[in-house]
Amino acid sequence: MPSRLSPHNFQDLFDSVEAFLFDCDGVIWKGDKLIDGVSQTLDMLRSAGKKLVFVTNNSLKSRKQYAKKFQSLGISVSEEEIFSSSFSAAMYLKTNDFPSEKKIYVIGGEGILEELQLAGFTGLGGPEDGNKTVQLSQNRFFDHDKSVGAVVVGIDPYINYYKLQYGTLCIRENPGCLFIATNRDAIGHMTALQEWPGAGCMVAAICGSTQKEPIVVGKPSTFMMDFLLQKFNISPSKMCMVGDRLDTDILFGQNAGCKTLLVLSGVTSEPELKDPSNNIQPDYYTGQLSDMLKFLESLN
Amino acid sequence: MPSRLSPHNFQDLFDSVEAFLFDCDGVIWKGDKLIDGVSQTLDMLRSAGKKLVFVTNNSLKSRKQYAKKFQSLGISVSEEEIFSSSFSAAMYLKTNDFPSEKKIYVIGGEGILEELQLAGFTGLGGPEDGNKTVQLSQNRFFDHDKSVGAVVVGIDPYINYYKLQYGTLCIRENPGCLFIATNRDAIGHMTALQEWPGAGCMVAAICGSTQKEPIVVGKPSTFMMDFLLQKFNISPSKMCMVGDRLDTDILFGQNAGCKTLLVLSGVTSEPELKDPSNNIQPDYYTGQLSDMLKFLESLN
Repeated sequence: MPSRLSPHNFQDLFDSVEAFLFDCDGVIWKGDKLIDGVSQTLDMLRSAGKKLVFVTNNSLKSRKQYAKKFQSLGISVSEEEIFSSSFSAAMYLKTNDFPSEKKIYVIGGEGILEELQLAGFTGLGGPEDGNKTVQLSQNRFFDHDKSVGAVVVGIDPYINYYKLQYGTLCIRENPGCLFIATNRDAIGHMTALQEWPGAGCMVAAICGSTQKEPIVVGKPSTFMMDFLLQKFNISPSKMCMVGDRLDTDILFGQNAGCKTLLVLSGVTSEPELKDPSNNIQPDYYTGQLSDMLKFLESLN
Repeated sequence: MPSRLSPHNFQDLFDSVEAFLFDCDGVIWKGDKLIDGVSQTLDMLRSAGKKLVFVTNNSLKSRKQYAKKFQSLGISVSEEEIFSSSFSAAMYLKTNDFPSEKKIYVIGGEGILEELQLAGFTGLGGPEDGNKTVQLSQNRFFDHDKSVGAVVVGIDPYINYYKLQYGTLCIRENPGCLFIATNRDAIGHMTALQEWPGAGCMVAAICGSTQKEPIVVGKPSTFMMDFLLQKFNISPSKMCMVGDRLDTDILFGQNAGCKTLLVLSGVTSEPELKDPSNNIQPDYYTGQLSDMLKFLESLN
């Protein structure tokens, strides 16, 4: 069973961890609003010499765009500290020597296209196809680019039949075409007041039409962890994953061999955590990130 | 192993069967074009006293609209002979005493709304929501009707984020709200020249965002068979299901205890039928429906 974070056990966690990995939505911010005390908590961790890494499944933005979002909320974070599933998709292709002459069709946001371009790849689709419609007259032929070698699917608030048909044709008809999902979260945080269908919705749609399963590059897949390990050269046992979702954040941390801390400031409530049907148990849980600051101050 | 239909075994089939159940797309027509010899074959079966039933997973049209399509192709079929998945969805609600004061949100075509109305229910959504967009500003609230007690999902070439969010909210937030799928076909025949994402695509999207599984009312579910049995009062062993898909038509026939005949005029090829990975074997198979006419003539 998970332990509620307290001044006592926080001391152990704090002393044994060299890098804190944070999910963003529900941990750092909610929509466009910073969660109380986050800025001071991150400052405290930095000044104590801890490495900070931000790992988000939200693929709408690129790392550069995320760094700007942090900045607009008054937090200084460098691009290199951000691991978004948009970046992860591009890195997956790079690691697997995806041929640069092949193209990548994107169902999702600008962030994916931007990361693909930065990695030297040619993306198509994305927001540009958001207003496209299909002609369903009997003798019309829907054409697709035969040089597409991968389809990347992320959360897409402008999903339509054009994109679904385009992605489906590439996966079904282009030999060897990869089907990559940024993540499979059921829920996406498109606005502050309620939940919206997440990438899991669009990814499932393509599974339904192609009858294929995707390669998932975001949490809880540990694909991103390889980069983290390489970059920070820290053993996973000296990392702590902090997140608000059991089935992505906490599972990701556990899959990678990290310590895990669930915060209750996002999608998971305490009753959900303690429900007998839940089989993902973090090492620790607490109300919100700034509890770390409170506990540390109580120790000094 | 299935037997190739021949003049000899056709005689046995013809003599032992009182009702022929036909899938439409790929058996009767392809898109808007009648398959060669279908009209004469149906005439022959009718004049031999066989009952004819048309069972289609395509929910875009109502039974009335299907009867018109048959008529426009020069074939006389009454509404009562047509069992579409749009009709099936309405009948499922009726059979299960769905309260008439509750509403039904539709992701799909006009046919579903028409069948719901004919059955005395109030549908909303459908084509009307095809042009709706979502406002993703942070403080905007996406409202949904709390009196929706069922969401029906079928093939929808005008799928968008508005409909996905609407259906998801009803299923997640309205207590006891049903999630009904007309069918889960991966492929839909929207045009004659190629395949398109079918209802399985939209249904999977809603599974992905709600993490719930639907009640399926179309093939291969045998829900429709109860109506057929009641109406025609014929034992399933005296029925033959004729279709072009193994995983819907032939499986439906087998699930219901009917004889089964695969025609190769639609999505399934002979190599696919005979592939070792295929585990759905019809009793018989033949090139196209009009082979029945040819065999019968050779016997006379």
